[in-house]
Amino acid sequence: MQSFETLLKLLETRLAGRIFPERPENLYDPARYILRLGGKRIRPVLCMMGSELLGDLSEDTFRAAIAIELFHNFTLVHDDIMDEAPLRRGHPTVHSKVGTSNALLSGDVMLVQAYEELSRIKKENIVDILQVFNQTAKEVCEGQQLDMDLAGLPLEQVKMKDYLCMITLKTSVLLAASLQIGGMLGAGTAKDLENMYAFGKNVGIAFQIQDDYLDAFGDYEKFGKQIGGDILANKKTFLLIKAYELAEDKQKEELLTLLNHKDKEGKVKKVLSFYRAHEVDQWAQEKKDHFVALAKEALDNIRVVPDRKRELEMLMTRLLNREN
Amino acid sequence: MQSFETLLKLLETRLAGRIFPERPENLYDPARYILRLGGKRIRPVLCMMGSELLGDLSEDTFRAAIAIELFHNFTLVHDDIMDEAPLRRGHPTVHSKVGTSNALLSGDVMLVQAYEELSRIKKENIVDILQVFNQTAKEVCEGQQLDMDLAGLPLEQVKMKDYLCMITLKTSVLLAASLQIGGMLGAGTAKDLENMYAFGKNVGIAFQIQDDYLDAFGDYEKFGKQIGGDILANKKTFLLIKAYELAEDKQKEELLTLLNHKDKEGKVKKVLSFYRAHEVDQWAQEKKDHFVALAKEALDNIRVVPDRKRELEMLMTRLLNREN
Repeated sequence: MQSFETLLKLLETRLAGRIFPERPENLYDPARYILRLGGKRIRPVLCMMGSELLGDLSEDTFRAAIAIELFHNFTLVHDDIMDEAPLRRGHPTVHSKVGTSNALLSGDVMLVQAYEELSRIKKENIVDILQVFNQTAKEVCEGQQLDMDLAGLPLEQVKMKDYLCMITLKTSVLLAASLQIGGMLGAGTAKDLENMYAFGKNVGIAFQIQDDYLDAFGDYEKFGKQIGGDILANKKTFLLIKAYELAEDKQKEELLTLLNHKDKEGKVKKVLSFYRAHEVDQWAQEKKDHFVALAKEALDNIRVVPDRKRELEMLMTRLLNREN
Repeated sequence: MQSFETLLKLLETRLAGRIFPERPENLYDPARYILRLGGKRIRPVLCMMGSELLGDLSEDTFRAAIAIELFHNFTLVHDDIMDEAPLRRGHPTVHSKVGTSNALLSGDVMLVQAYEELSRIKKENIVDILQVFNQTAKEVCEGQQLDMDLAGLPLEQVKMKDYLCMITLKTSVLLAASLQIGGMLGAGTAKDLENMYAFGKNVGIAFQIQDDYLDAFGDYEKFGKQIGGDILANKKTFLLIKAYELAEDKQKEELLTLLNHKDKEGKVKKVLSFYRAHEVDQWAQEKKDHFVALAKEALDNIRVVPDRKRELEMLMTRLLNREN
């Protein structure tokens, strides 16, 4: 398997080519804009790795990889509208640049274009790939909905299993499906494909736990953004939900009161001590390790020589040992 | 071929069944809501007619018909957000009921569900059908974009050919593709499919001309809505663009001034006299007849016994001789 960087370069060459028609410019320029803002391209490269793990890169792999990246960017454009986010990757979001109506429509056409890429796949298993893609796309929409639903609920009513379900759907299934679809274009057995899916899914969940952890306990210098952003926004994270779950009745009240604390710095400090007092930091590390172990086990079970899996393992290590 | 009403009943039975999962309710309830608001269902029934014209109704036909109706309703939900429309078919629009974010996301999942229906098509030509569907979906997005672009332009810069292109993409190509996709699931030759597409497209354009005409010259009693709504909104219609095109320089100025006329009743009256003075009403009727003739010619050229085409001809007559 080629390295992440080599695969990324191959992908970027394709993405720099002509994906959309020139006109109408107001429709396709915003799509070109978000697609060229960059990003880590983890999903399409995972798709390429999936093909290389079990076979060779083909034109079909590039079509699937581009479809996946288009889908991912479509969700970013629409999520940013829903979240009223001003910035994405350090640049203005599409709707801040061109307005909500235009951003909405450009997002729509990106989703259609994703399907157009998929429909060009020559291999006989296009129907199976479409079904995995559709199922995943629906789950990602469901994850976004559950995220909005959870945001509107009082903390007392949020259960850990609902949060886990939400982040699995919102972020992990697409990582899982990317690797799996790549594998379907290689020559994966059902069992191998299942393990590839499980690897991607568990890496995704571990990544999200780490993300929640770093926002609270990260090193400001290395994390590169304000520590405690989630706490200030009262965002329901693994940590907050677990802390509430572990607390005694009286402490639960205390935590709920803390959420309305006006002094920002004091609030972050107090919530962090609350987390530490309940050893939520340690719990999060253990929980992350649990999902990493599941991912490793799935990777081990894929029946190819270990040497071929090295790049996937390195990618996992890099994603899950970041401090920023 | 079975009658429109019989086909519609068959379709409604399917649409009343389980199309979406139950949960998350906030995601799928809005999709169920818009789908059950009704509407004329012309597109999916055209798809069914396409299959019956050249073969038999099959499960695949229902899958395609439902995909088309889902796609159409997805565009309605998103267009209503962009137009900030409060009502649709006499009921609150989805975003007025559940908010913009939720409506946006429910629209997205309807588009994905449309592809899920398509991906279940068993026939070997699923790839061809996907390509027609994708091409059409992109064109519909382009049409909506051109509509927004034209709305932002001063009348002096709007050309008839751009308007014609816009309404062809925004409304006609989906009618065309609906019939064609049905035909692909029958046993259409390339030539037959081309004629079916042409029939649907030209009926669509004629219908839009009639729509513009009735808004200005319709019978209030029969039209059932206020006459002159387009005039009051300064909407660029076939009539307004043609009137400006036909006018002498001095009259062009007069028309532009009329657009800013404050007195509503006076404005409608004056613009209507302007239209009549330039015989734009008569021109519109001739233009409509032109596209009706093209549609008839295309229908004639489909190589099946005339008896099989009767329901399609009746549908055209009913759509194009309405007074409301």
